[in-house]
Amino acid sequence: MNTKQKIVWVKSQFCPFLFKKMSFSIRKGEYKDLSSALALVRELAVYEREPEAVTASLQDYQEAYQEGIFEILVAETENQVIGLMLFYMTFSTWRGKMLYLEDFIVTEHWRGKGVGSALYHRFMEICKEKRAVLAKWQVLNWNDPAIDFYEKRGVIVENDWLNCKKFMNSSL
Amino acid sequence: MNTKQKIVWVKSQFCPFLFKKMSFSIRKGEYKDLSSALALVRELAVYEREPEAVTASLQDYQEAYQEGIFEILVAETENQVIGLMLFYMTFSTWRGKMLYLEDFIVTEHWRGKGVGSALYHRFMEICKEKRAVLAKWQVLNWNDPAIDFYEKRGVIVENDWLNCKKFMNSSL
Repeated sequence: MNTKQKIVWVKSQFCPFLFKKMSFSIRKGEYKDLSSALALVRELAVYEREPEAVTASLQDYQEAYQEGIFEILVAETENQVIGLMLFYMTFSTWRGKMLYLEDFIVTEHWRGKGVGSALYHRFMEICKEKRAVLAKWQVLNWNDPAIDFYEKRGVIVENDWLNCKKFMNSSL
Repeated sequence: MNTKQKIVWVKSQFCPFLFKKMSFSIRKGEYKDLSSALALVRELAVYEREPEAVTASLQDYQEAYQEGIFEILVAETENQVIGLMLFYMTFSTWRGKMLYLEDFIVTEHWRGKGVGSALYHRFMEICKEKRAVLAKWQVLNWNDPAIDFYEKRGVIVENDWLNCKKFMNSSL
């Protein structure tokens, strides 16, 4: 399941003129990675301007993972998780089996180093291995770097569907 | 799992001045209902102006159902399926367990008779039974009757997310 190690030059966190030769790899995530996954989700929520919206706990992640509701893929360097994909199998009534990518995150310090591309590439391989006919996910309409990333890879980006959400703790 | 029989007056298909007292009920769908489910999906695709887009076969439905990828709920009258909900458990990285409603259909002749409300009500009960913290689905931005139906029931309808789709048989 592991991809080859990828070698990249990463700017030092301490001095902007220093670069360090580092490597990362992509692997299937496990139960032990869930706390790192949640930390990255919280980081992305800040980027998406909704830091208060993450109310799921580590226990929620652990229970759902053990129920087999989702799988994860992680990017890792020196035993540190720097990127995440969280996904699950669904079904398109029009097309058939569809792998849904719920979240796709690269930690800020590691963006622009090929980590997202490597995760994306592995995710598409997994879609084929699982015999899904398509992959689906969502992107915020103001997130131009992400939209560019997808459109360069032949992804269809559509604006004609609205999301509907009903929280179980609301009235009505 | 069955709800009570609901009694409604339904216009005759042969004479617009004749009404017939009929009843329908909501029940968990089974393997044997999948061909009726697919027939309703094809009917909805015509309403959504994309009749060619349904490429999934009955076999695709049967295989995915047997793999446990989705569940269905059906509305039924006189052994005929007149309404469908197809859904599956997913995970919101922000909120936790989330029941996703992939498709929600009432056959044209039976619209406006409370079938949609009865399905919707049963779906919300199932969300609670499965301990999902929220339900999510999508609606086309021009489908005003559906948007009204949801907004009257306290559903949050959002327009800031774009759908991304990648078909596995495409290049890149």
